[in-house]
Amino acid sequence: MNRTNPIGIFDSGIGGLTVVKRISSFFPNENIIYFGDTARVPYGNKSNDTVIEYALQDANFLFKKNVKLIIVACNTASSVAIDVLKEKFQVPVIGMIEPGAQLAIDTTNNKRIGVIGTYATIGNHAYSSEIKKHNPKIEVFEKPCPLFVPLAEEGWMDHPSTKLIAEEYLNDFINWDIDTLILGCTHYPLLSAVIEEVMGDKVTLIDSGTAAASVVEDHLNGRGLRNTSVQQGQYEYYLSDLSGKFKDVAERFLGRTVGNINKVDLEQLI
Amino acid sequence: MNRTNPIGIFDSGIGGLTVVKRISSFFPNENIIYFGDTARVPYGNKSNDTVIEYALQDANFLFKKNVKLIIVACNTASSVAIDVLKEKFQVPVIGMIEPGAQLAIDTTNNKRIGVIGTYATIGNHAYSSEIKKHNPKIEVFEKPCPLFVPLAEEGWMDHPSTKLIAEEYLNDFINWDIDTLILGCTHYPLLSAVIEEVMGDKVTLIDSGTAAASVVEDHLNGRGLRNTSVQQGQYEYYLSDLSGKFKDVAERFLGRTVGNINKVDLEQLI
Repeated sequence: MNRTNPIGIFDSGIGGLTVVKRISSFFPNENIIYFGDTARVPYGNKSNDTVIEYALQDANFLFKKNVKLIIVACNTASSVAIDVLKEKFQVPVIGMIEPGAQLAIDTTNNKRIGVIGTYATIGNHAYSSEIKKHNPKIEVFEKPCPLFVPLAEEGWMDHPSTKLIAEEYLNDFINWDIDTLILGCTHYPLLSAVIEEVMGDKVTLIDSGTAAASVVEDHLNGRGLRNTSVQQGQYEYYLSDLSGKFKDVAERFLGRTVGNINKVDLEQLI
Repeated sequence: MNRTNPIGIFDSGIGGLTVVKRISSFFPNENIIYFGDTARVPYGNKSNDTVIEYALQDANFLFKKNVKLIIVACNTASSVAIDVLKEKFQVPVIGMIEPGAQLAIDTTNNKRIGVIGTYATIGNHAYSSEIKKHNPKIEVFEKPCPLFVPLAEEGWMDHPSTKLIAEEYLNDFINWDIDTLILGCTHYPLLSAVIEEVMGDKVTLIDSGTAAASVVEDHLNGRGLRNTSVQQGQYEYYLSDLSGKFKDVAERFLGRTVGNINKVDLEQLI
């Protein structure tokens, strides 16, 4: 394995671009290959078996591109498929759950952590199990917030309805007196301003993408695989379906121009 | 073909159950087989090529179940795949676009029609082209309302945010002075109360499922294929993915208990 080999990142769709953004700001000289399974998005409402099958195909696509490390940017895939993926591939596989849970554990003072995510992530109690494995005394409170994804994709960060929806979803967490809230879906960091506004400044938001970046750093350093080039990394984007909307939404998510977008046929994955 | 053969209805997911509801209330003695492609839902953000490929697979699944007629309950699939489907299968294929457009044409007095739907349906100008084919003088105003689908699935028909979102999406139609609004997505009839409230009583809402039911009647009568049984029809549901949420949402959509739910592997479709 070579230092200049790319980091592979996959997601069910485009939400994982918030993770690309984090990784690229921590490691600007690393090359990145992104795969978004836009033909089969979202994973959050699919069964565990289906999500595992898709995640294996997605990771395999990246593996064949000689990535030195795979980041599972999709919380749903991380929550149900991470063990299978770690066993199957001979490169480090880093999900969202372990890093996010660990950062939340390190952050909470009152030992009361909240988790928001898709139906699948919350239904699997992925963060909750991971937290309790390390510290069973921490209380974890969970709730799915499915409307946050389409709100982020619509770009309605400041719309009054977004505030009302955030209040509806988050009021329970205020009553539960949490001091730390895990944003357990890659779209949610885009709504962090309104979530912060509703939760108040006593609650710290945990972005799993940021947490994952520090685990990535440990892996790369530990294996001598940090790219030492002083040049800006090259980015390639692969999508299982190209829709007209992708470039716009991607640029909003990444905050910069996006090129090198390629279509991958589902037949190549299966 | 036998009178007792079932009517086949497919959709990208569960939204098409609003069409099942309409068909079952018009033809309570007809047997119905429903296929929902829940493993690959939604179609509304996918490319035309992908939607056509999926629609062919979905229709073929029903065709092999010896249905006497296929209803494409998905507006997105209807808008991009109806011609291919009609050519491919030897049973009548009825989409949402032609019946909905025709009913809107028959309804409007001021010749100003609005259409709401997913990005794909609106982006294809499916209703608009169909309306203008019959009467080029009618003005058609279109807008995608992507948040309506998750709001319907969350069951937030009466939530204050739903009213705000409806106002945001629909205010333009009031300025455009339409008198007829096509609900161009199978989920939207579930939000008809709030849409009616925002649009006021001078605007008539067009439910394509209701419009399609009358076309179905013509086809069945014309071919002598109306089921003459006096018994309640039998219903079978097939889904490409089973999630815990399906039964709840389906019962909310249909307004009654749902049984006989079967999983279909994607391999059986492809």
